[in-house]
Formats: sequence, structure tokens, C-alpha cells
Amino acid sequence: MPRLSEVIAALDALWPPDRAEGWDAVGTVCGDPDQDVSRVLFAVDPVGEVADEAVRLGADLLVTHHPLYLRGTTTVAASTFKGRVVHTLIKNDVALHVAHTNADTADPGVSDALAGALDLRVVRPLVPDPTDPAGRRGLGRVCALEHPLTVREFAARAAERLPATAQGVRVAGDPDALVRTVAVSGGSGDSLFDAVRAAGVDAFLTADLRHHPASEARAHDPRTPLALFDAAHWATEWPWCELAAAQLDEISDRHGWDLRVHVSKTVTDPWTAHAASTTTDHPGAPN
Amino acid sequence: MPRLSEVIAALDALWPPDRAEGWDAVGTVCGDPDQDVSRVLFAVDPVGEVADEAVRLGADLLVTHHPLYLRGTTTVAASTFKGRVVHTLIKNDVALHVAHTNADTADPGVSDALAGALDLRVVRPLVPDPTDPAGRRGLGRVCALEHPLTVREFAARAAERLPATAQGVRVAGDPDALVRTVAVSGGSGDSLFDAVRAAGVDAFLTADLRHHPASEARAHDPRTPLALFDAAHWATEWPWCELAAAQLDEISDRHGWDLRVHVSKTVTDPWTAHAASTTTDHPGAPN
Amino acid sequence: MPRLSEVIAALDALWPPDRAEGWDAVGTVCGDPDQDVSRVLFAVDPVGEVADEAVRLGADLLVTHHPLYLRGTTTVAASTFKGRVVHTLIKNDVALHVAHTNADTADPGVSDALAGALDLRVVRPLVPDPTDPAGRRGLGRVCALEHPLTVREFAARAAERLPATAQGVRVAGDPDALVRTVAVSGGSGDSLFDAVRAAGVDAFLTADLRHHPASEARAHDPRTPLALFDAAHWATEWPWCELAAAQLDEISDRHGWDLRVHVSKTVTDPWTAHAASTTTDHPGAPN
Amino acid sequence: MPRLSEVIAALDALWPPDRAEGWDAVGTVCGDPDQDVSRVLFAVDPVGEVADEAVRLGADLLVTHHPLYLRGTTTVAASTFKGRVVHTLIKNDVALHVAHTNADTADPGVSDALAGALDLRVVRPLVPDPTDPAGRRGLGRVCALEHPLTVREFAARAAERLPATAQGVRVAGDPDALVRTVAVSGGSGDSLFDAVRAAGVDAFLTADLRHHPASEARAHDPRTPLALFDAAHWATEWPWCELAAAQLDEISDRHGWDLRVHVSKTVTDPWTAHAASTTTDHPGAPN
Amino acid sequence: MPRLSEVIAALDALWPPDRAEGWDAVGTVCGDPDQDVSRVLFAVDPVGEVADEAVRLGADLLVTHHPLYLRGTTTVAASTFKGRVVHTLIKNDVALHVAHTNADTADPGVSDALAGALDLRVVRPLVPDPTDPAGRRGLGRVCALEHPLTVREFAARAAERLPATAQGVRVAGDPDALVRTVAVSGGSGDSLFDAVRAAGVDAFLTADLRHHPASEARAHDPRTPLALFDAAHWATEWPWCELAAAQLDEISDRHGWDLRVHVSKTVTDPWTAHAASTTTDHPGAPN
Amino acid sequence: MPRLSEVIAALDALWPPDRAEGWDAVGTVCGDPDQDVSRVLFAVDPVGEVADEAVRLGADLLVTHHPLYLRGTTTVAASTFKGRVVHTLIKNDVALHVAHTNADTADPGVSDALAGALDLRVVRPLVPDPTDPAGRRGLGRVCALEHPLTVREFAARAAERLPATAQGVRVAGDPDALVRTVAVSGGSGDSLFDAVRAAGVDAFLTADLRHHPASEARAHDPRTPLALFDAAHWATEWPWCELAAAQLDEISDRHGWDLRVHVSKTVTDPWTAHAASTTTDHPGAPN
Repeated sequence: MPRLSEVIAALDALWPPDRAEGWDAVGTVCGDPDQDVSRVLFAVDPVGEVADEAVRLGADLLVTHHPLYLRGTTTVAASTFKGRVVHTLIKNDVALHVAHTNADTADPGVSDALAGALDLRVVRPLVPDPTDPAGRRGLGRVCALEHPLTVREFAARAAERLPATAQGVRVAGDPDALVRTVAVSGGSGDSLFDAVRAAGVDAFLTADLRHHPASEARAHDPRTPLALFDAAHWATEWPWCELAAAQLDEISDRHGWDLRVHVSKTVTDPWTAHAASTTTDHPGAPN
Repeated sequence: MPRLSEVIAALDALWPPDRAEGWDAVGTVCGDPDQDVSRVLFAVDPVGEVADEAVRLGADLLVTHHPLYLRGTTTVAASTFKGRVVHTLIKNDVALHVAHTNADTADPGVSDALAGALDLRVVRPLVPDPTDPAGRRGLGRVCALEHPLTVREFAARAAERLPATAQGVRVAGDPDALVRTVAVSGGSGDSLFDAVRAAGVDAFLTADLRHHPASEARAHDPRTPLALFDAAHWATEWPWCELAAAQLDEISDRHGWDLRVHVSKTVTDPWTAHAASTTTDHPGAPN
Repeated sequence: MPRLSEVIAALDALWPPDRAEGWDAVGTVCGDPDQDVSRVLFAVDPVGEVADEAVRLGADLLVTHHPLYLRGTTTVAASTFKGRVVHTLIKNDVALHVAHTNADTADPGVSDALAGALDLRVVRPLVPDPTDPAGRRGLGRVCALEHPLTVREFAARAAERLPATAQGVRVAGDPDALVRTVAVSGGSGDSLFDAVRAAGVDAFLTADLRHHPASEARAHDPRTPLALFDAAHWATEWPWCELAAAQLDEISDRHGWDLRVHVSKTVTDPWTAHAASTTTDHPGAPN
Repeated sequence: MPRLSEVIAALDALWPPDRAEGWDAVGTVCGDPDQDVSRVLFAVDPVGEVADEAVRLGADLLVTHHPLYLRGTTTVAASTFKGRVVHTLIKNDVALHVAHTNADTADPGVSDALAGALDLRVVRPLVPDPTDPAGRRGLGRVCALEHPLTVREFAARAAERLPATAQGVRVAGDPDALVRTVAVSGGSGDSLFDAVRAAGVDAFLTADLRHHPASEARAHDPRTPLALFDAAHWATEWPWCELAAAQLDEISDRHGWDLRVHVSKTVTDPWTAHAASTTTDHPGAPN
Repeated sequence: MPRLSEVIAALDALWPPDRAEGWDAVGTVCGDPDQDVSRVLFAVDPVGEVADEAVRLGADLLVTHHPLYLRGTTTVAASTFKGRVVHTLIKNDVALHVAHTNADTADPGVSDALAGALDLRVVRPLVPDPTDPAGRRGLGRVCALEHPLTVREFAARAAERLPATAQGVRVAGDPDALVRTVAVSGGSGDSLFDAVRAAGVDAFLTADLRHHPASEARAHDPRTPLALFDAAHWATEWPWCELAAAQLDEISDRHGWDLRVHVSKTVTDPWTAHAASTTTDHPGAPN
Repeated sequence: MPRLSEVIAALDALWPPDRAEGWDAVGTVCGDPDQDVSRVLFAVDPVGEVADEAVRLGADLLVTHHPLYLRGTTTVAASTFKGRVVHTLIKNDVALHVAHTNADTADPGVSDALAGALDLRVVRPLVPDPTDPAGRRGLGRVCALEHPLTVREFAARAAERLPATAQGVRVAGDPDALVRTVAVSGGSGDSLFDAVRAAGVDAFLTADLRHHPASEARAHDPRTPLALFDAAHWATEWPWCELAAAQLDEISDRHGWDLRVHVSKTVTDPWTAHAASTTTDHPGAPN
């Protein structure tokens, strides 16, 4: 049975911490390097329900995509909900390790898993990592469809292939326009519009798009409109958990570690219901 | 018929520019102070479709909630979509005036109109303006319901009373929990969670909520969960156009200006369709 | 007849926008890329009198050296004098394009034109652009005189050869000292004294010199005094308008565009008169 | 005979150092607090010629308006021209004391002396010091003329009453416009245009005005043009030396110190000659 | 038996967290607000030896003067020595609470305890807290001796009365000079010299003084030399642990909590030995 | 007899000023480049006693390691203790020159002299200067002992070989641990712990170590403890004066300058006495 330090060395080889962004906070959050590891759980968010799932499962290590503390903390007291997670984990001997932007830009990484879930062929990174001579690492992915789909059809595919959420998928664009190429980026994609425009794709699928960036992206060049698909942040990153689990399984086999590797079943998208608009009876409203 | 400078003086009395946030850009964007004004159009977004609507309508003045240039520009060339709006407006003698955070915090303001659309009783500002001795100005509103509704019922009301959009309303929380008090804030509400928690309300309705702020708000205190409602940014601010148009109508009557005041019928929410999740056949996915 | 976008492409080839300083604001300020261009006016300053001159002349494009908006603006309302210029230009279909520090450092550029007006032989840039392998681009020019002149004679030449202004030329230095080499820089030269001293020239001709930089430059090394000549900012940059007009004429001929290219006759130096000191009768004053 | 520390205490009472701007560097630059003082020289600039004048005169104390080191130095080595001044002064037992922005804003201060030299009646400070309940201290002065003069006549008066310099006075404005009120500010006035416009005066006399601020001030409001007068920086501040010398004389009498107080005769304006423009024979130039 | 939240409320009443400096990190670092507390340990440093002492003692709460994390951390992994402390504490149900600059400036506070250990009479704070109308809170204390001591005698008293350390007390000053008044400040005192000089005391006792501040303080005014005493940082703050323990004992009695309150016996000064200089045989060295 | 400028050129060749840190202030502080130099004094600190020593000795040049003004000054008035030094030096024709971080990192430099005094063999720089291809320049030195010593023995050697001071040497670590390799750095070493740990040495000798850095360095990795030796700042840098004096002597011989070169005998360590702790009779104190 490997020690935590050995498993973390393997994870760091997949997602080297020094490839994370400067503002990011990746690596081991809690746990003893000398403890044994036999069971590992992968999840998107290190929240209380996921920590409880790890304890129930008897996991020795929880690996999440999102950091518990993105900004530094001076307290882990259990009076805070994040400190409560730390207490739960330490008291139950569950280590926590984070692979965030170093997993986003890895080869394969978060957006490769997303492209795979959507049955897309990856062409190249959306924002290539200039330090990768092979040109495969980087943020987001530019993808091609084997057979063009309409915007309406592509939305249906996304709604079907991504993990189900109450919020579903928001769509902007002419429903009959054809999508031949699409940029995808797991998680918040607000900041990537310059790269998306430079890529000259037909569409962009990501999460957490807000009114102003989405409106400006739509208005930017009326001659070459860009279709937008906005899914749940969690749903765009969950496919990576399966990918990562498979990667660790393969490593475990190679080393004869006999690890039991799981993927979290907890839906951590905060939105639990959706109400469709109805034609308002408000006089004068633009329906 | 009043001159533009007279109408703007009246608008500035409703929404004094020096009450806007320091980072905001309110006031007149284009137009000649000496031109006559007989027709006015109110809208949320100064985009191309709205400028065209103003021209078709024969409006002399377009008043929008969102700034055309929130950050300073050194060009209004028509090769940019914002510069194209400036050319359209100047060539057609349509002035553009913006009331943004000075309208958000006004009494009555954007969130009063939102509360009115939802049939809520306003109790006080969510973030009071410390310079208002009457305690009525400020960002957002803390509201009470005459009769408690469940989260499910309140979502249905929001979906029915707000202008219809393709994206509808996202909901987080126990559908059977009771909502007696609710904070509302037109537009992006990510930054207001501290004030919402301090207000001790049962729910928060706003727009543009992203994964991390929404998740953390839900996790923050499990003993007093906060229900969340996320509507289209445009839909939460459109009710203000009707309020503002009525305010200007009343001023026009008082001065004998005989203005014709309109509210835009253009839906400027970027999202034009929605695809609900279907149970995925992806093996192992958390449905 | 070329479209505006074609003419601007030609100007951008002469003065590539990415060679402007980071703080500068060059490029097209207003105008439609699809409008036709048959007449062009070059000027130093985009002020109201020059915009009126362009309209009177029937110009479709005004090219100025100084930006209209060096710092970003959020308004072009005609209640401001700069917004008034924008309205005049857009309503009369006159585009405005700016070549500022990208023209200063071009080869040939603003200081080449200034050197030419003064009948100086250019030796090299005063502050070379390190990205130019030919060593010809850069800020200011180090020049040689074919025949040495005294400071007094050089001042007389500058007063005669530069466009006439009410303020004339200010001179610092021994009137009988010889000028064999001189650094010249069109526009404000306060910040260039380190480079001037490093160049080891006998004199420096520029504009907008203030008391402290000029005094310190004079005091800096009493063994090798530097003569100074301070002309009107506008007068030092006007010769570039003629150079630039000739460059565009040549391009027009080459493309068969048949452009009519003009240079502004408007003096935009703010100083309109000069009063010489008289011996004061103030008792004790240093006359 | 007083000690240096006693004389400086008297000067600090006239111009308290804590009333200087935060970026300024006032107070004693060199000298021993215990040395005796019998002769004092006032000057605008602490340059080499002035230090030599102080030594020749046998002065024990030189008081200047401009700091020797506005920014901190880590060396006073005589290989620099400022360090040479320090060596000259220390070796000859001449102390150096600076009263700069604390003298600008004093009551009476630098601009009072300037107004006096121009025979103007001071109405109030241009930028009042908010800590002065009497409303007399502050930067610049707003002044009234007993009898209105034309711009041409006012320029002539300035050229006659200020210490003579080679550069004379630059003038902007309609020569026949009437000047009834004028703002004056000794030294560089570029940064004061907002206050000048707010004061609603007919004219502004100051020094070191550059092209862009002067042009923008002239263009700002064509309905109420502002006339500008730009004199030599040194000439606008020299009158203060006479005022300050008289103030110290009076203090010396009161204490029975028997000081001999002088005003420097050295002209430290860097400009030593002026060449008027002649009609250029440059074909096409705007004469 | 009180819950942790109750004990912390009592400690926060003694040392309100909002009285800590903005850069400080005080409050509860780990522990569950609902756990019971029966035994408390006070110490200066939250290091591994002290955490082990708390575990051995069966303490439920460790209160230290120094923060564990002064700057925020994104990890508490046990591979770091601070994370190891967190694991030890959480696994053994020992909460950690910090009172740092809020205890320094309290009334009574860290320097009161130091003064008490040295048998000094406290006159006033060295740097008074301007928000305390009673004038008793603040950083450091200005103290008087009942009977003057020589510098030599005062050093001997400090060496005897403070907890013993290998490094002892460093002394600067004339050994026969009299000490009537002394400023004391527990912990690093480098930054307090301005206040010490303003207080006009004969001596300053603190810790962690470095060459440059100490040398400059000695040189500052040769006419009124300041004697300096530099003790171990830990030794100057340890007396506060006894004071604080007594304060909590008194609170426990008042509430009938029956707490058992201890003071750490672990010396956490890093210096474990001292070697006196011997006359060097290095030729030419200044012995 | 050489002129000051010639001697300084020789010193600048030994310690090029551009190799000093960006925050440092090296070079000539006062003196006339044309004065003759026949006698030179080297010292650590440019304080009053050392300036007096230079005057007594008849030195024309004082070279110190520490800057007189590390931060820029706007005054050298003799009412400040540093200005008093400037007056003493200028009036007595003693130039002052500083070689600080450019001497620290030189080859040979300050830490080479320190290693030599301790009879250590220098292996490499502790923080190599990346611009030195030979790999010999840099901050601090990593050294080897010919024969291992215990911590106790090494402390005794340091106490014997360094110039004697009242404070002696502070020691942290197991007295019987063996020291085979040691990092040394003259002056304050607080900021070098990362490099020391990376070097993997057994011990670190430097000065001015404070509680927190020393404690954290000791706690950092309990498996490979680092012994610490803290000597007087002055004592760790004085050996460099002898080295530098020998270097200048050699240059003087080579040029036939016949300089007389001295090393200061003034002890400028501020600590003049030391009191060892005695077992306290304070009840409960950890003795």
C-alpha cells in the first residue's frame, strides 16, 4: 500500500504544480505524507457533502479540482464552513489534494475530458501553453465536429451528454446556424472571448457566462456571429474526474498499488431547480 | 419643445450623476445640448438593435441603464460595434444618456421597480447609502412578502412576472422552504452576499450568479440556508425602464413639454434558447 | 476612389500603430471603414478650427499628429469641446485618423521633417528604436551642420525656416559659441536631456522646455555647455504634415487613387502675441 | 548677532515647513545651527552662480525659493553640480535654507508679491488652503484691476513691471479683449487651469505653460475665452525675494539682530536670447 | 463545563480582535466552537514542542501570543511544520486561539506584564491608542523606577527578573549613567525609536534590536544619550502568559467554569547557548 | 600623489557600482574629484567617531562598508547626526566613499574575509550572481571545515577569531552536533534562510537574526536541524576592512601612488555590555 507522499508524487507528475497559474493554490491541503492510501475519491468541489462522501466511502485521499482555499487563510476553525471541512478530513484521516489550473492545461486535461463527453475531435488548445513544444497543453480546446450540427442540435447533444443539472444549457444564436468548429473550456469562460474570436470558431461552450461579456461577444462582429452554449460549471468539469480516476487507476496498476479509485456521485452544482418564463401579463412588457 | 440640456437637467435631478459609483460612467454620451427633444426611448442596453429602434421610432433621446463605454475609449470609429452605435446616433440626431448606478441606488430605483414587478413590499435598502438621512436610497432592496410562499411558488411567480426570457429562472434551495423575506438586486449580484447574509433574509433574487459565489453562499451557514433565484440580467432591470418612463412622463406634464416617452420592446438578453438536461447514458455519471 | 479602410491601411503601413508608445492613443478616431475618400487634410492638432477647415475643404479624412483623446473618454457629447469636434466630423462624413509617436519614431518621421526644414543633415536617431536593425527609427534626431554656425546664427535660421509664430524662438547659451552638431526633437523635449547629453552635441532644439529641466541642463556640466533652442510646439511638428502629405500623394499615384491631399493652413500654436521685456523701473530689480 | 537656529526659527514662523506640500523638500539644506548669522541673501534658485554671489557678499545664510534637492540624494560629491554647490557653501560657512510651497501659499506669499509687482489688488487665493479660517492663504491669487486694461495693455504692463528677461511675455487671446480680473501664480501654472476656470476670471498670468494645457484652456469654452500670459518662471518668483527680505529686515529690527539682508542680482532664467519669427520662404507654410 | 465558543467570547472581551493591527492575524486558528473546555494552556509560540506540551497536559485550548499563520496559507498539510501543528491539535481536540497585537495594546497588556516583572511603575503607553479615552491602552509602556539605578544595575535586574535564556541581555550605554525612566516593549522594538525619543526617557528595554536601528538610536542625539537593553523576544513576552492566565482564572471563578489554567514551561527562545568574545590574536583587530 | 578621481576609479574596478543591489546607495558621498589623496581609512560604519578618527589621522579619504544615506536625503544640515558627519568631512577635506552590496558580492568580498577570519575553506557563493560565469561572485559563502567541529567548538572558534564585542556569539543547536559545512554571511542574514536550507549545510553564521526567522529556521525540518551562530553585525564585516586595505595597498604599489592605508580601530557595534541571565526567583517561571 503506497504512502500519501508516493501517491501525491504520481499526481504531481500528471499535473505539475508549477504549471498552475500564479494566482492559483494547488497541491496538498491537508494530510500526513506518511499515512497509507488505499482508497481515493475524485470530485469537483471540496465542500462538506463531498467530505462526508469521502468519509462514508472510507477514502484516504480526496482529490478535487477546485481549491478549498484559493486565497490564503489564517484560520481553519470549525466555525467556518471551510474549516469544518478541514476538521472532518483530518479527524477521519482523509488527505485533500487539489489539481486546478495545472489540470486545466494538462495533456490530457479538463477540456479534453469535456470534449470527449461531447464527442468532439480536439484540434489544438484554445490558449496554448508557450512552454509546450508539442503544442498540446493549454487552456480550453478548439474542436471539430465529425458532422456539422445545427445550433439546436448541438445544444441537444450538450444537454444529453453532460451530467444532468437542474439548470440545463443556455443557448445564444440562430438555431439553424451550422456548427462545424467549437471552442470548449471547462469552468468559467468569461475571460476567453479574445482567444475564441481569434480562433475563428462557430461556437463556444463553457460556463458562468454573464450578461455583459456574452452580449459583447454576440455583438462583436455581426458578419460572423458566434453561437454560445452555457452549461453548469460543475457539469463541464465533472468529466475530468472520470479521466483523472482512470489515469490514477492505470498508475496504480503499473505500481501494483492496488488502489480503489472512485468518482464522486455528489452533484455540487448549486442550482437545484429551474422555472421557465411564462408569457407575462405585465402590460407593455416585451414578450 | 424642450432642449436636450433641459431634459437632461430633469434626468440628473432624478438620478444625480455624483451618486454613481466612482468606477461608473454615467451621463450624456452623445448629442448636442441645444437640440430639441420631443420623443424619448428608455432601454436597458445601448446596443445596435436598440439604436435602430430609436431611429425607427424617431426618438431624439435614448436613455439606457448600461453605459456604452464603461471604460474610457480613445476611438468611436464605426469599425467597432460601439463606434457604429455612436455613428448611427449622431447621424440621426439621437442623443444617448446613461443612468446606471445612480439609478440603481435612487429612491425609487432599479430594485424598487424589480420589487414592484414581483409584488413585494420594500422594507429598506440592502446596502444603504450612508449619505441619505431618510435611509431609502442604496443598492438592492430588502423586501417582505405579504403572504409567505414556498421556494417553488416564489420561483413560479418570478418566472411569470418578469419579462419572459429563454433562460428563465434558476433556483437553489429546498423547494418547500418558506420565503417570508427576500433581498432583490437588479443586475449582477455576486458581490452582495455579505450584505444579504447580514440582512438575515430567507432568499436572494438577482442575476449573473456564478458557481463559486453561489456555492459558497449556499454552504455558508447550513443552519440558516439561503434560497437563491437567478434571473436574466436584462429581465431584472427592464422594469426600471417602465418606472423611469413614468417619472419622465410626469415631469413632461408638469413642464408642459408634451414629450412622447417610450419603453424599448427589444429583448437584449443574449440567451435565445434553453435546453433542459436529459438523463445521460454516460456510464457512471451522477444523474 | 479608395475606401477609408484602404487609405488607413496605407497610413498604417507608413506608421504602424504597434510602434506607438504604450501610453499613446493612435489610429482611427471616427469614420466608417466603408466610406469613400477623395480628399485628405493633414494637420498637427484636431481642434475645432481644423475640423471646420476640413469641412470647408470637403475633406473625407483628417489626419492629425496629436490624438483627440489621449486618455480614454466615456463621452463624446457636444457639450465638451472635443465631443463637438466628433459631432462636426461625423455629421460631415469626415473621418479622423491619428499618427503620433508612431510618426515621431518613423523613418522618415517628425524629426526628419524638422531637420529638413532647418537644413540639417541627419546622422542618427537621438533615442534609437532597438527593434530597428537599420538604426534609423527612433525618437529625435542627432544632426550635423554642413558649415558651423554660431548660436546667434542658428537661432536666426530657426526663426526664419520654421513656420512663423508669435512666440518665436527662445535661446540659451553663449551667442558666439559654435554649433556643429545639434539634436532636434519635434514637440515637448523635457524628457530627452539624458539622451541629448549622451549624444555629446553642441545644441538641442525642441519645444515646451520648462525652467527646471532647462536650468539643470545648462548647469549640468559647465565645461561642455549645451546651447538650447525652444520653438513653438506646433511649429516644430508642422513640417511633418508636408512630409506626410507628400508620402500619401506618392501612394495615391502608385495606386491610381487620385486623392487630393492638403496641408492645414491653420496656426494652432496658442500664443498669438509676444511682449518683450523693457528695463523695469522697479528699484533694485536685476536688469 | 543671532545664531543660525534663531534666524531659521524666525523664517519657519513666516513659512511653517508643515504647510509645504507632501512632495516638497523645504527647510535647512546645510549649515550648522550654532553658527552666527550677520548677512543673508535671498534668491530664487540655489545654483552655482548664486552660491558664488553669496560667498562674494560674505553672506552666512542663503535663502532660496527652489529646493536644491527636491528628490532625495544619496551623494553630495562635488563631481555633481548640486554637490559642488554644497561643498562651496559648507567650505565658506554659508547655510542654505529653502522656503518653497510653504512660501507659495503663505500670507503674504509668492503670488502676493507677483500681484504687487503688477499693481493688482488681491481678492482671494486661487486655491484656498482649507486649514486657514481667514481664507487668505493658498496657491495663486485671484486679482482685480482698478481700471480695466485690454489684453494688449496688460501684456505691456507685465513686460514692464516684471524683472527683464530675454524671453519676455507670451500672450494668447484677442488683443482688444478687456481684462478686469486676473488669476496669477508664480512659477509653473499648468496644473491650475481647473481652478482658474472655476474662478471665472478674464485672464491667467503664470509661467512654464506648455502647448497642450494652454491649447485646451483656450479651446475649453469658446463663449468665455480666457486670455493667457506666460512670463519667465524666475521673473514671476523674483518679486517674492524682495518681499521676504523686507519681512526678515523687520524681524531683525524687532529683535535688534542688526542683520544685513540682500536680494540676489543674478538672473537665473536659463533663456538668454530671443529670436522673433520672420516670414518664412518655405513654400506652402502657414504664415 | 463551558463550550469553546463561550471561553473564546471571554478572551475576546479581554482582547477584542478588532483592536489588532490591520496586518495581524488573531483569533481562533482551529477547534470546534461546540467542544467542551476544561483545561487551558497559555504560551508565547505555537510551535511543535508547545503543541506536544498541550497534548501531554490534556489541554482543550492552547492560547498563544504569536499567530501560527501571520500571512494566509492555502495548505495545512502535515508535510509543513505549521501544518503538523494543526494536525496534532485537531487530532487531539486541542483548539488554538491567538491574542497578539490586541494583547500588546490591551489594558493590562503584554508590556504591563513586562513592566511588572521588572518592578517598574507604569506611567503611560509608549504609543497611546487614540481610541482609548482613558489613555491606558497602546503599544509599549513608559515607566518610572522608584529609585534610580545605574545602567549596570538595571541590566542586572533585567537579567535576574526575566525568564532565564542562554542569550541574556545586551546593553548599550555608559554603565554608570542613571536610569530614572525607561520605555519597555515586549517583542521586537526596532520600529518604536521615534516614540521612545519623543518620550524623553533614559532607556529602552525591548528585543530583536538590529545593528542599524540601534546604532542610529545611539548616535541620534549625543547630548541626551539613550541606554538600550535587548533581551530575548520570548523572555519579554512570557510574563504576559502569567498575567493572562490569572485573568482567565478570575473569569472562570466568576462564571463557575472550574477551568484549570496553565502557563507553558517550554522555553521557545531559539538561542540555546552563548559564547563570550575572547581577546583575539588576529593582528591589528580592534580589541 | 593620485587625485581622488583616480583612487575612486581603482575602487570602482574592485567593486563596480553597477553590481550593487537596486535599493543600495554606493559610491562617493562627498569630496572633490580633483583633490589629492595620500592617506585612506577603511571602516564599517560612517559614524561621527569614525569621521573624527579620519580627521585625527589626516586621512583624505574614508571608505566605509555601510552607506551614510541608504535612503535619499534632502538635507545635510549639521543639526542631524548624519549631516554633522558631512560637515566634518567636507570642512576637513575628507572624501567619503561607500562599497556595500557591491563589496558583499565581490570576489573576494565581505564573506570571503569573514570565512578567512574563521579559517574556513570557501566552496561557492551562497546566492551566486547569475552574471558571473566563473561562479565566484554572490552573496554569502558556503564553506567547508578541514576538520569537523562540534557546535560548541565552532562557537568557541567564532568567539575567539572575530573582533571582540560585548555581545559575543549566540548559538542555537545541539552543542555536540558536528559542523562539517557552514554558510557564512557578513551582516544581517534574516533573508537568506531559503538559500541556506537549499545549500544543505550543517550551520549558518551571520548577524542580526531575530526571533521569528531564527525560530522558523530551527523548526523547519526537525530531521535535519540547522545550527545557528549570531555574531555582532560589525564583527562579521570588519574582516573585510583588512582585506580591502590590502587590496588598495597592492594597487598603490603597482601605480607608485605611495598611499598610506589604514583600518579603523573604532568598535562601532552599539552593544557595550552583556548581562547573563541568572536563575530567576519569579515563581513559576520556566528556568
